[in-house]
Amino acid sequence: MNTISNIGVFTSGGDAPGMNACIRAVVRTAVYEGKKVTGIYHGYQGMLDGTFVEMNSRSVSNIIQKGGTILKTARCIEFRTPEGRAKAYENLKAQGIDGLVAIGGDGTFTGADFFSREYDIPVMCIPGTIDNDLYGSDYTLGYDTATNTVIDAIDKIRDTAASHGRLFFIEVMGRDSGCIALNAGIAGGAEAIMLPEKETAIDELIDLLERAAFKQKTSTIVIVAEGDKNGGAYNVAKRVKEKFDYYDTKVSILGHLQRGGSPSSFDRVLASRMGYAAVKHLLQGKTRMTVGLRGNEIILTPLEEALNNKEFKLSNDMLEISQIMAI
Amino acid sequence: MNTISNIGVFTSGGDAPGMNACIRAVVRTAVYEGKKVTGIYHGYQGMLDGTFVEMNSRSVSNIIQKGGTILKTARCIEFRTPEGRAKAYENLKAQGIDGLVAIGGDGTFTGADFFSREYDIPVMCIPGTIDNDLYGSDYTLGYDTATNTVIDAIDKIRDTAASHGRLFFIEVMGRDSGCIALNAGIAGGAEAIMLPEKETAIDELIDLLERAAFKQKTSTIVIVAEGDKNGGAYNVAKRVKEKFDYYDTKVSILGHLQRGGSPSSFDRVLASRMGYAAVKHLLQGKTRMTVGLRGNEIILTPLEEALNNKEFKLSNDMLEISQIMAI
Amino acid sequence: MNTISNIGVFTSGGDAPGMNACIRAVVRTAVYEGKKVTGIYHGYQGMLDGTFVEMNSRSVSNIIQKGGTILKTARCIEFRTPEGRAKAYENLKAQGIDGLVAIGGDGTFTGADFFSREYDIPVMCIPGTIDNDLYGSDYTLGYDTATNTVIDAIDKIRDTAASHGRLFFIEVMGRDSGCIALNAGIAGGAEAIMLPEKETAIDELIDLLERAAFKQKTSTIVIVAEGDKNGGAYNVAKRVKEKFDYYDTKVSILGHLQRGGSPSSFDRVLASRMGYAAVKHLLQGKTRMTVGLRGNEIILTPLEEALNNKEFKLSNDMLEISQIMAI
Amino acid sequence: MNTISNIGVFTSGGDAPGMNACIRAVVRTAVYEGKKVTGIYHGYQGMLDGTFVEMNSRSVSNIIQKGGTILKTARCIEFRTPEGRAKAYENLKAQGIDGLVAIGGDGTFTGADFFSREYDIPVMCIPGTIDNDLYGSDYTLGYDTATNTVIDAIDKIRDTAASHGRLFFIEVMGRDSGCIALNAGIAGGAEAIMLPEKETAIDELIDLLERAAFKQKTSTIVIVAEGDKNGGAYNVAKRVKEKFDYYDTKVSILGHLQRGGSPSSFDRVLASRMGYAAVKHLLQGKTRMTVGLRGNEIILTPLEEALNNKEFKLSNDMLEISQIMAI
Repeated sequence: MNTISNIGVFTSGGDAPGMNACIRAVVRTAVYEGKKVTGIYHGYQGMLDGTFVEMNSRSVSNIIQKGGTILKTARCIEFRTPEGRAKAYENLKAQGIDGLVAIGGDGTFTGADFFSREYDIPVMCIPGTIDNDLYGSDYTLGYDTATNTVIDAIDKIRDTAASHGRLFFIEVMGRDSGCIALNAGIAGGAEAIMLPEKETAIDELIDLLERAAFKQKTSTIVIVAEGDKNGGAYNVAKRVKEKFDYYDTKVSILGHLQRGGSPSSFDRVLASRMGYAAVKHLLQGKTRMTVGLRGNEIILTPLEEALNNKEFKLSNDMLEISQIMAI
Repeated sequence: MNTISNIGVFTSGGDAPGMNACIRAVVRTAVYEGKKVTGIYHGYQGMLDGTFVEMNSRSVSNIIQKGGTILKTARCIEFRTPEGRAKAYENLKAQGIDGLVAIGGDGTFTGADFFSREYDIPVMCIPGTIDNDLYGSDYTLGYDTATNTVIDAIDKIRDTAASHGRLFFIEVMGRDSGCIALNAGIAGGAEAIMLPEKETAIDELIDLLERAAFKQKTSTIVIVAEGDKNGGAYNVAKRVKEKFDYYDTKVSILGHLQRGGSPSSFDRVLASRMGYAAVKHLLQGKTRMTVGLRGNEIILTPLEEALNNKEFKLSNDMLEISQIMAI
Repeated sequence: MNTISNIGVFTSGGDAPGMNACIRAVVRTAVYEGKKVTGIYHGYQGMLDGTFVEMNSRSVSNIIQKGGTILKTARCIEFRTPEGRAKAYENLKAQGIDGLVAIGGDGTFTGADFFSREYDIPVMCIPGTIDNDLYGSDYTLGYDTATNTVIDAIDKIRDTAASHGRLFFIEVMGRDSGCIALNAGIAGGAEAIMLPEKETAIDELIDLLERAAFKQKTSTIVIVAEGDKNGGAYNVAKRVKEKFDYYDTKVSILGHLQRGGSPSSFDRVLASRMGYAAVKHLLQGKTRMTVGLRGNEIILTPLEEALNNKEFKLSNDMLEISQIMAI
Repeated sequence: MNTISNIGVFTSGGDAPGMNACIRAVVRTAVYEGKKVTGIYHGYQGMLDGTFVEMNSRSVSNIIQKGGTILKTARCIEFRTPEGRAKAYENLKAQGIDGLVAIGGDGTFTGADFFSREYDIPVMCIPGTIDNDLYGSDYTLGYDTATNTVIDAIDKIRDTAASHGRLFFIEVMGRDSGCIALNAGIAGGAEAIMLPEKETAIDELIDLLERAAFKQKTSTIVIVAEGDKNGGAYNVAKRVKEKFDYYDTKVSILGHLQRGGSPSSFDRVLASRMGYAAVKHLLQGKTRMTVGLRGNEIILTPLEEALNNKEFKLSNDMLEISQIMAI
């Protein structure tokens, strides 16, 4: 039987659009279930600093449409130590927090894993990261919004590229995951896409660009994921330029604007469903689980399984599509 | 063995964002496979009128980001008659078209079903409608974009509603399907959502609005699907107003702007995958199938099965979420 | 010499994007000048109710990009009576407010005019309304944003109109002023524009639509200002339909979404300049003035002059352009 | 008396949103006046290559909302030589072009100046550049759109900056002009703005950032114009970082996305008015003039005067506002 009375909620690691919508869902579901909710500022750091705030339904009014996270986020080194976690536990206990919902990425999940193996506070994890690089969910919070932000940028760059007949190398986020690059590349009509998961040799790229030039395309756009093995957009552009100067070449690093912005409908609904499910399951006695979306269903995955596995989210048809669509 | 040499592609019924991205994918995949492609203007009407255009890779340059459909669309009564379909067949034959890809909704599928039972031209169907009301796919083309358009409108209306403390009734598209209403309602933070699939009595709605007023919410938004049994936003507003005049009340009918706009990344990728799959399978000898998305996989469903079944796409958690989130 | 120590700021009448940016500018300029600032909720109503809040630089953090008004707005009938204004004066005095900045439209200015003739509290007025119908400024706050919102809607409707070959009548805000209609009509490429300032006979409109049909335009859009003498978009559509059924006809009433949304850069800068100027001049001893933009300069106009004059903001070249561009 | 029968129109230099709307206005006004219109591709280069296309009203359908330029643009070195211009003249004559409308920036105007002093083809110039750095107009085409694009990016970056408590340096376009930086900086609520026109010493900037840190702002954004004397955002960030490491610091170079995108309503209307005025005046016998906007009026300035003067478009109130608003 469930005896949780006060749920602590926090965001940790890189922020992602939809985190606020998710905090709102956690808070309102908890309130609806008659529980107290405590916001923890700055992720794990806030557990150490004791920066807690009591929340109610009105605390999360009018935030569903906002980027970023009202609870702030941080990376916390001290929490990686047993001493740090002990201190966090003390503070949570003192505050009366007896259940946790963690929203974040890989590092957040690892922290939750350590903590919940050592201490008896149940914890549910929600995947929030624009990279879509977590096991256990077709989509992570913020990924859909970030992809829309990227194609908006590609569309704009296409306008100027086509007016000048230029070749653009656009670098997008994704250190280990090519999800944004592949999807935004297809959606933006990119002529080539460089992914961390699948190395493209520079010679191969040049061949492709030569064929594009031959077809008299008015512009050419190459999407380069941050984690591409050739070293990012500047390096790829430089090496292409050395051997192939047909085009006037430009580089654009989209950078942090990919993290912000009002979340898409998809991310707001996903955030609402995940926050709701995390609280529901926490109150039903579940712990050490991540919440995810499979097809149209919300599922749970044991935290350990989520941390020890990788999903390859680039379906094979999409890799082929990315090439055929560029003809 | 496949002997298709010339694929006809057309859009029919209501237009939806992503149709152009899909036409592009059909054309480029066909060209890549060494086939001819013929665009048919105005859907089935164009088969009757013989408004055909030969297409190549460049015909679909720079359209992936465009709303509407470059092949235009129409509803065609004559095609519902055996004589009409006979004439269409004549014209297609004369043009050398020996395979078809149809992009549209329920009516489009019905036309394809009749035609392909009577004549020996293989046909693949792609679900393109903002309503997301077709069996055989988690998502139809255009639905994601339309939902984003709706929440953008709700966010704007929320600004003015909150400034004045007003009650807004916003009518969104969906004659038989509450998909847009439920998702955009949750994403827009609506206080109540009226769906065709689940009647809400006016008294129940007034109770809910009274509770919202009591909580001193600064604004209240009710989303009403076009097909709500109470007769649309104006009627609902009128009946609420009769019994409950706490608020200054306004009605907004979003209307046709929901159909347009540049497709979201989700819709562009979905369109590319569906167009690619339709051509691939057509060339592999498939016919009378609809293309769909299940989870992250592209699947096929027999056309007859798609036409004879209904999917309830409003998951139960979402119905509950829509209520809890409004507290 | 100036002795103002506590500036009251409020928004009144219809809300407009940019009001928050303007409140921010008033507050920060006043703080910078060493003054106290008091926010008055719900416009004149708040003076009567005494809903005051002390503000500082942090009170207006992160609001420059938000639509609506954090100080809320209302229309207040009691303030139109001498008794109401007497009560307002009492409350302001009790609160220590000895200077006022009013942000709003015609009604707001009229209220300020009465009040400042009767009582010794200096007042500066800032034109905030999407209608751009005030004398003394080339642009009012919110007008630029609203026009961008309208063309975004027109662009979307154009997508679907062009796909179906339809005729759309789109009604936009503007009871007395055709500013939004004329500018958004030109910017949206409308085939015809119906303005309050210049009656277009239905026969004339039908002639024009016949010529458009003859030119085989793929779609036709008529913008109708709310205040058009023929009675709004539904009436115009109905009368056109009676005599001219060439097209499939649709009507779209954009409604209140025109009032909301994040303000454009133009409106945010204008709001900042106007708020700054209002406080600066108030502290220099000015009163009963409206702040405005002429060319690139901020100017002042006596309140009485502003109230007693009308500006015709539709330049003659634009009226001709709206017709030539539709060929 | 006017004898122009065939107007050549072209875009040159960097592209800017609104150029298509302007081409449309030139074409339709010329057609309305019974003249032929010839599009010249790739600016002056197209005169040399003879890449001409005859245009009519339908050639410019559905382009008012598009970024970039359908006539493409280029920089052309050969046109800077007397031989190049002689060849261009031959080609124009052979094509029957006897009047020119040039849309572009400083280089475009210089080319037009040389050419029209040497040859008897009348020419009108329209200022099209996002930098707003031309004499003779309050606004150049594309500037308003670019500024909106920049604030959209700043708003997004603010979301993530505030979530992490970070300091961001955002570099925006403007080699000689701080117009975008100052306006977008004010509109984006930047804590500091670095302009080419007004050097800010790094020490001064650090002082300001220290004060911001002291006020416990949750994020700090510094806008750096490309042409800032300290050498761009990376250099400024590096030098700040050396002396002041309070913050986690990030740099974002917005780059070419600032050039693209659908033009704002302001730019579309401005483009329509300028294109219309250029043709009207050309047909009235004017030549060697630039078209501009002063207040709400379209004006002409002699080309020579425009080339030999500079306008300081950063009004003094705005420089002060940029500082006060950051408190």
